[in-house]
Amino acid sequence: MKEQSERLKIIPLGGLEQVGLNITAFEYGDTIVVVDCGMAFPEDVMLGVDLVIPDVSYLKENRDKVKGFVITHGHEDHIGGLSYVIPELNVPIYATKLTMGIIENKFEEKGLIKETKRHIVKFGQNVNFGDIKVEFIKTNHSIQDAAALAIHTPAGIVVHTGDFKVDYTPVHGDQINLQRFAALGKKGVLALLSDSTNAERRGFTMSERTVGATIDQLFQEHSSSRIIVATFASNVDRVQQIMDSAKKFGRKVMLEGRSMCNIIGTAIELGYIDVPLDTIIEIDQLKNYPPEKVVIISTGSQGESMAALSRMAQGIHKKISIMPTDTIILSSNPIPGNEKAVNKIINDLYAKGAEVIFQDVHVSGHACEEELKLIYSLLNPKYAVPIHGELRHRRANANIAMSLGIPKENIFILKSGDVLEMNGTGAEVTDRVQTDMVLVDGLGVGDVGNAVLRDRQHLGEAGIFIIAMTVDREFGQILAGPEIESKGFVYVKESEELLDEARQIAYEAALKCLNKNYDIPHFRNVVKDSVNNYIWRKTKRRPVILPIIMEL
Amino acid sequence: MKEQSERLKIIPLGGLEQVGLNITAFEYGDTIVVVDCGMAFPEDVMLGVDLVIPDVSYLKENRDKVKGFVITHGHEDHIGGLSYVIPELNVPIYATKLTMGIIENKFEEKGLIKETKRHIVKFGQNVNFGDIKVEFIKTNHSIQDAAALAIHTPAGIVVHTGDFKVDYTPVHGDQINLQRFAALGKKGVLALLSDSTNAERRGFTMSERTVGATIDQLFQEHSSSRIIVATFASNVDRVQQIMDSAKKFGRKVMLEGRSMCNIIGTAIELGYIDVPLDTIIEIDQLKNYPPEKVVIISTGSQGESMAALSRMAQGIHKKISIMPTDTIILSSNPIPGNEKAVNKIINDLYAKGAEVIFQDVHVSGHACEEELKLIYSLLNPKYAVPIHGELRHRRANANIAMSLGIPKENIFILKSGDVLEMNGTGAEVTDRVQTDMVLVDGLGVGDVGNAVLRDRQHLGEAGIFIIAMTVDREFGQILAGPEIESKGFVYVKESEELLDEARQIAYEAALKCLNKNYDIPHFRNVVKDSVNNYIWRKTKRRPVILPIIMEL
Repeated sequence: MKEQSERLKIIPLGGLEQVGLNITAFEYGDTIVVVDCGMAFPEDVMLGVDLVIPDVSYLKENRDKVKGFVITHGHEDHIGGLSYVIPELNVPIYATKLTMGIIENKFEEKGLIKETKRHIVKFGQNVNFGDIKVEFIKTNHSIQDAAALAIHTPAGIVVHTGDFKVDYTPVHGDQINLQRFAALGKKGVLALLSDSTNAERRGFTMSERTVGATIDQLFQEHSSSRIIVATFASNVDRVQQIMDSAKKFGRKVMLEGRSMCNIIGTAIELGYIDVPLDTIIEIDQLKNYPPEKVVIISTGSQGESMAALSRMAQGIHKKISIMPTDTIILSSNPIPGNEKAVNKIINDLYAKGAEVIFQDVHVSGHACEEELKLIYSLLNPKYAVPIHGELRHRRANANIAMSLGIPKENIFILKSGDVLEMNGTGAEVTDRVQTDMVLVDGLGVGDVGNAVLRDRQHLGEAGIFIIAMTVDREFGQILAGPEIESKGFVYVKESEELLDEARQIAYEAALKCLNKNYDIPHFRNVVKDSVNNYIWRKTKRRPVILPIIMEL
Repeated sequence: MKEQSERLKIIPLGGLEQVGLNITAFEYGDTIVVVDCGMAFPEDVMLGVDLVIPDVSYLKENRDKVKGFVITHGHEDHIGGLSYVIPELNVPIYATKLTMGIIENKFEEKGLIKETKRHIVKFGQNVNFGDIKVEFIKTNHSIQDAAALAIHTPAGIVVHTGDFKVDYTPVHGDQINLQRFAALGKKGVLALLSDSTNAERRGFTMSERTVGATIDQLFQEHSSSRIIVATFASNVDRVQQIMDSAKKFGRKVMLEGRSMCNIIGTAIELGYIDVPLDTIIEIDQLKNYPPEKVVIISTGSQGESMAALSRMAQGIHKKISIMPTDTIILSSNPIPGNEKAVNKIINDLYAKGAEVIFQDVHVSGHACEEELKLIYSLLNPKYAVPIHGELRHRRANANIAMSLGIPKENIFILKSGDVLEMNGTGAEVTDRVQTDMVLVDGLGVGDVGNAVLRDRQHLGEAGIFIIAMTVDREFGQILAGPEIESKGFVYVKESEELLDEARQIAYEAALKCLNKNYDIPHFRNVVKDSVNNYIWRKTKRRPVILPIIMEL
């Protein structure tokens, strides 16, 4: 038992199958430290689900061991689960300043801020959790204040990169602290958990600063248009650069969209954006300036249907109408899965006569192949555990690790819930813990699962066909009905014959059941099957068939 | 009236908003010739819809004028509507040999082949429809036997490129007939309708032949694996090249997937694929060969959930199981919108331990910017009408036309249904005809429309909540119920309290209605509203609420 407790356990709790749901437990002896706690947007098949949060059963079962959450950066896929999980598991949160500012925004909205224990950590600082000590190391990413974590344990040092890139010319603040990575490598690193998102891409991710030059040029070329730039609200440096261009070309800036106002407001307040106070105007002041003297920075660059840009493109934004003289810049690339939605917005904007610019006004926030090689080489870890990204991306990361000489058996592509135990003499997956996803729909957390989703899928694809009747089984009579109702099946007005015939079929089936004195479950099945067969024969469709048989 | 009839009318009947639904009417005097008749796959919001076909009301209203369909090539988005439209509008179909072979396949499946008038046309041949004469011109595309059309009318010559690229080194058959384009240009071209799909892409599309070299190399590198190549069934030249590599490396070929067997069968029969008879084996013969001696050519490269590759990846294919030693090559790029589905397949295949190759084993079948410039320059048309592709692509095509000196006012980006009239002295959109989309669901053609789709969307996102009861309004009594049924809303077992309370709410609402002797519609509304309010308050969800109030 002693030996067992001297190995470090690394347990991904949702982050690997379900992209975006980043949360990993590090356990040594009686200490558990959790890195990140994300949320994810639902997959297409999760109809009606608002968002997906991690299942923290394992943490709840080991409540006494859990010492805190350490957060790498302020993106939703790393912090979005906190406001659901913290009320159940009230342990402190550790994060850098901007990251904590964004977390606090969310907790305030939900009225949870008072009871939450929060600690702001500086780069270079160590947080001591007993057997585990966590050091925050400066990195670059598409949000300010992103950190890698060096997790110091008696079993060795594990480095978790968080999401990162290497930016030698960042817009704000320092470069990634390569010297610290080198020093850790020199000391000896047990394992590296590194960001796989761009592992399939060759070369090096361009500096955020290059986008600034592009934006300047676009402002120059479109000096007589109103300019609307859509980008990620959390990309503080991008917004800084748009504001810089605005200043240079004498335009006022208006921020549009709830998350844009929230996050950029926080960033300005905390000193992460440098902007003259009179540059920013409110939406109602727009009318006081000629169009060519303003720039609107908006959410919705991913085609999100309720975001500001989408509402403008559809002509349903309450205060901003797209004009043929507008130039709209999408400073973003579609995240895989959002291509269609983004396309729709581009087409809608074109249909309103506007100019739309959507190519080459973005750089990624994630490390490409050569950056990953750099980090592997500086750290020289014994084990590699590719994280962040789909399986295909983690496989590509593993290939990079192998190309640098890490043996295949020292590379672990983990499944969610896998318990990877390691120390200087070996590493293996020894166990599996529960890590289902938890679906949030309205106020319900976890009350929608696979059975409900399957029903929604079926309802959505084929509609429902209901047969209601009240019977008196004792006297063998149908007292009321069969009443037929359908939703999402066919136009009722144009299909009266079909509905009438279905009613007749149900009626005859019901009479048979009454004659034979079937019990209600049997009765339901017979009615259901006969209607089902009839509908399939006539339409080759299979709506949900729901008989409701009531008795007096 | 005379003058009016001397202008040529060009009427897109569905091809432009709804990508994929290509069908364009050319009308001069009493003659209408229709180019292509496609189908499209449903948009995400068209839940449960199998496919979308064009609305040919305009053609039916002008039945006497319609002389025939001329088809540019055998892709579904150009021929898929024919088997629905021809039975309503029995006019002859004109197409090249392979295109006709593929059309005949579909008509045979539906038992429509006998009553369909079909004419195979050779390149260089003219089809005479009276005032309109259509000439078929050889082009290159990702399917064999693709044609551009020169539409000769008294108002001038209009060229319709169909889908095309310029391939100087095609795998089978000739290059695009650039000399004929040049001769037409010399003679004078009134308008060019050209493929916009790749108009945003710079440069020149690579030759199909380059893919052959890549496939050869992959066969060389994976000589000890079973190889599965997924590609478009209709890309006859691609399949030819895979078969060539198979032959070179001593592998047998198995074709998998219904459309692969159909189309490649037709192509072999008609002489468009050159393959030794003993190369192809049946699925049941697979076991007679070692894995490294076979290649499976499969459908499903777009992640289609029911196609062969998807079934293999999910482990539900009846006869083929993926092995860790397999190499799967996706010889395709995801069509926009299919990225997620393709990703899923790649991840599923990786999860089975197989090698997956999906980058740079494909070239497009559509002309890029420089090819479009070439065609514009050879034809030198007075008017440009960008076709094929979303609005953003057609805008890019228009920009190319402008860069070559075609004045903006001579470029027409048409909406579906627009009637563009033109002759040598002018062109303008003069009218609009009806061109709704027709949705096909099971056997139903056109019986699913917006109202039904909205219901499906609502059902799919939130489920349904049904309250059934039988009342005696005369005596003010509830005789049976309220019975509560829900589907796709919550787990019934875990939400008994909610359902019980909803039943109580419905009961009280019903008693109130009986007391006030409300009529049934009013009764339904009161019950619906009270349950709706209760559910929203408790869950913040809005399922479809359906009260069924029956009377004795």
